[in-house]
Amino acid sequence: MKLNCDMGESYGPWVMGNDAEIMPFIDMANIACGFHASDPQVMSKTVAMAKEHSVTIGAHPGYPDLMGFGRKEMQFSTEELINIILYQVGALQAICSVQDTVVSYVKPHGALYNAMMSNLDTYTTVVKAISLLNADIPLMIMAMRDNEKHIAIAKSQGIGLLFEAFCDRAYMNNGALQPRRQPGAVYEDLNSIVTQAKSLIENQPVATNTGEKLSLTANTICIHGDGDLALSSVQAIRSILKSL
Amino acid sequence: MKLNCDMGESYGPWVMGNDAEIMPFIDMANIACGFHASDPQVMSKTVAMAKEHSVTIGAHPGYPDLMGFGRKEMQFSTEELINIILYQVGALQAICSVQDTVVSYVKPHGALYNAMMSNLDTYTTVVKAISLLNADIPLMIMAMRDNEKHIAIAKSQGIGLLFEAFCDRAYMNNGALQPRRQPGAVYEDLNSIVTQAKSLIENQPVATNTGEKLSLTANTICIHGDGDLALSSVQAIRSILKSL
Amino acid sequence: MKLNCDMGESYGPWVMGNDAEIMPFIDMANIACGFHASDPQVMSKTVAMAKEHSVTIGAHPGYPDLMGFGRKEMQFSTEELINIILYQVGALQAICSVQDTVVSYVKPHGALYNAMMSNLDTYTTVVKAISLLNADIPLMIMAMRDNEKHIAIAKSQGIGLLFEAFCDRAYMNNGALQPRRQPGAVYEDLNSIVTQAKSLIENQPVATNTGEKLSLTANTICIHGDGDLALSSVQAIRSILKSL
Amino acid sequence: MKLNCDMGESYGPWVMGNDAEIMPFIDMANIACGFHASDPQVMSKTVAMAKEHSVTIGAHPGYPDLMGFGRKEMQFSTEELINIILYQVGALQAICSVQDTVVSYVKPHGALYNAMMSNLDTYTTVVKAISLLNADIPLMIMAMRDNEKHIAIAKSQGIGLLFEAFCDRAYMNNGALQPRRQPGAVYEDLNSIVTQAKSLIENQPVATNTGEKLSLTANTICIHGDGDLALSSVQAIRSILKSL
Repeated sequence: MKLNCDMGESYGPWVMGNDAEIMPFIDMANIACGFHASDPQVMSKTVAMAKEHSVTIGAHPGYPDLMGFGRKEMQFSTEELINIILYQVGALQAICSVQDTVVSYVKPHGALYNAMMSNLDTYTTVVKAISLLNADIPLMIMAMRDNEKHIAIAKSQGIGLLFEAFCDRAYMNNGALQPRRQPGAVYEDLNSIVTQAKSLIENQPVATNTGEKLSLTANTICIHGDGDLALSSVQAIRSILKSL
Repeated sequence: MKLNCDMGESYGPWVMGNDAEIMPFIDMANIACGFHASDPQVMSKTVAMAKEHSVTIGAHPGYPDLMGFGRKEMQFSTEELINIILYQVGALQAICSVQDTVVSYVKPHGALYNAMMSNLDTYTTVVKAISLLNADIPLMIMAMRDNEKHIAIAKSQGIGLLFEAFCDRAYMNNGALQPRRQPGAVYEDLNSIVTQAKSLIENQPVATNTGEKLSLTANTICIHGDGDLALSSVQAIRSILKSL
Repeated sequence: MKLNCDMGESYGPWVMGNDAEIMPFIDMANIACGFHASDPQVMSKTVAMAKEHSVTIGAHPGYPDLMGFGRKEMQFSTEELINIILYQVGALQAICSVQDTVVSYVKPHGALYNAMMSNLDTYTTVVKAISLLNADIPLMIMAMRDNEKHIAIAKSQGIGLLFEAFCDRAYMNNGALQPRRQPGAVYEDLNSIVTQAKSLIENQPVATNTGEKLSLTANTICIHGDGDLALSSVQAIRSILKSL
Repeated sequence: MKLNCDMGESYGPWVMGNDAEIMPFIDMANIACGFHASDPQVMSKTVAMAKEHSVTIGAHPGYPDLMGFGRKEMQFSTEELINIILYQVGALQAICSVQDTVVSYVKPHGALYNAMMSNLDTYTTVVKAISLLNADIPLMIMAMRDNEKHIAIAKSQGIGLLFEAFCDRAYMNNGALQPRRQPGAVYEDLNSIVTQAKSLIENQPVATNTGEKLSLTANTICIHGDGDLALSSVQAIRSILKSL
């Protein structure tokens, strides 16, 4: 089980997250590519930091909306969306390349991630973009109760998948995350986060928001780098992994 | 002698230049990369158009200043400037790659081009950025009376150079272009443009603004794709080249 | 019957529309405010041009999406949308003020206009923003078969309304515009445009896309400043108005 | 003696400064206007916070360079610079107006402030922009050994001035600030900051970086809202002021 975390989401003079503190404890860094956050300098520094800690680098492309942090739904044509993804991944590839490293996977950000998970057409477009890169890199998507369609589409384009689960969000019985605005949707205590992470690591079902059991098959757990519990939870989860 | 032209400088809903009309007559398209102009969709369409006409593609990175079209001088640290160039070239490389083509050279835009030609430190930084790309692609710079230092620096970094001359701008005796605001600096008649192009093609000296002779050794002539004379001049110069 | 037209939609180095040609023939200029198009310099020049031709100035605020020209639907909270409108109108007010003129109405742009016309909550927010400006200026909205709810909401906030109709778009029987992508939705011949304008001017019903009659009560006709027919149609419609 | 502080320099998802903590202790808030930092929502919230603490609001316009936080020198024509200032101040005026408050002064930001203080032409342009606003509001500039020319130019345009001094920066004997990169230029201990503030409050000379005495006549002390000492120093200086 790998730990992935969004990284490099600072921009110009603005700092976001605690990249330097979190990086030593994760396996995979989803590095923002300049459209929803980051800039060339931040990208370069984040790649260097990931490399220093032997963290695998993923491209984290988003919608072109800095003010909205790529969290607003935006409509693009298939062709536009493909080019938006190619542009961002290519930019990060060049920055990786000069540091003798590579982009090893793609995980879309924010509203693009949500659109990909809620709309198979958008998902297909994202898969298509990655296949066009011809870089033999997988796409990271959300582990759900049923990812069969996702698997079939990726397979048809020759693209691998990584499945991520969340340790600090409540799941609903249908396998989706409980909407963020509902009470209890985001865990605010270390214990709940670590408990859910432990279940995922041990390949045990997680408890949904109504207390039922939900089985998810995940390759990686998404860690959030921001917030009061970020550092303590990633350290605790890393300890569990080390103790295995 | 190759003809190069800035291409793909539209942005979102705004169109600039007559790319479709000019593309058939040029050899090398300097394609904007999204910082001073262009966006992923425009880049993709411009690459397709260049490919259709067997035009060699160059990256045309600029300063991050859309409103100022990359024409304002801006100070960046060496590291920042390298990352700004890498980002843009990488983005274009990815967009080229999915169309089975490549970025074959780099020509900086506007104020970055001027800074590179007027400041050897900036020039060295640009050369360094290209060498880091490890793509074995040359840098296009301005042919001057004396490019020895440029050649030495490029050589020391293992980078090739392309030298461009201008057919629609008056040169001064020192080999620099006459400042744009001075009367006569920009040729506004087809005859002057074609005459200067002819001299360059035939490797003959051009007449400076005071009537003296200036010898320039150029691999390529820069064509401007905008303006009333753009199409007629590129057609006329192409005719000369064909008749050789 | 007044003629209104979107103006000042150039940005930095990019020109859009034929403002100088169209301005002499219109009564009301909807001036872009920098979020979907325009910049402070373009705004200032457009205000000057409007003033020169005694054209009434309206603010034309849009969503903050330059690349998408404010044509993409974007979700904002009520408070965010109000502030987005206030910001843009205030900026134009200052630029008008130094030229001894004023913003006399507000007409939202693109996706914001569409959202306002298709969603009463968004409409109410726009009305609220204008009422907060306390500038005693009306909102321009689309004349429909039934604007009763719009009128009631505006009245409750003490805001006046201007109703605009389109002369170059086909209406459907329900009073909405035929979607742009459908054949025949946008008139491409001068005669259709002028005929519909004439009906509107004479307060006669217009013919819908199925040939039925639709009565619209409009204070102003929206002219498009772009496209081959822009100049000839505005001239023809102005002639009709002059002959009355 | 008033305390002024740059406020509202967050942007979209990115937070800068500790506005909520600092605001209760200052007299004047220089509120960013969206070009180097801030957005309509941040501006509105910052105005509300200033109002809540009876803090006078100033417009803090900057160059249009978000990534560089308005700290890069950029060249604009006189007309462009005027429009850039008008746009930003007007936007803030509208946001103030709906909260029944007003913009009471203008203090340029970053590179624009530096350009204004180092170049009388730029200064004259800024003064001109404010006079055009016709809002009878003063310009805040840096108190120097000799502000005579500044005073004369402002007077000729009918514009008032506010003079600010710095309590956390070392002055040189010529009255300019010691360049930020030199050791000792920025005070990093509370005692130095408070001592200098005390001298300024008591209208006593401050000690320059070489230990000589420099007399400055200031109306206001600039407080920095960022950094470890921000809160403790503003609290200490407020205590001094209260004890007078």
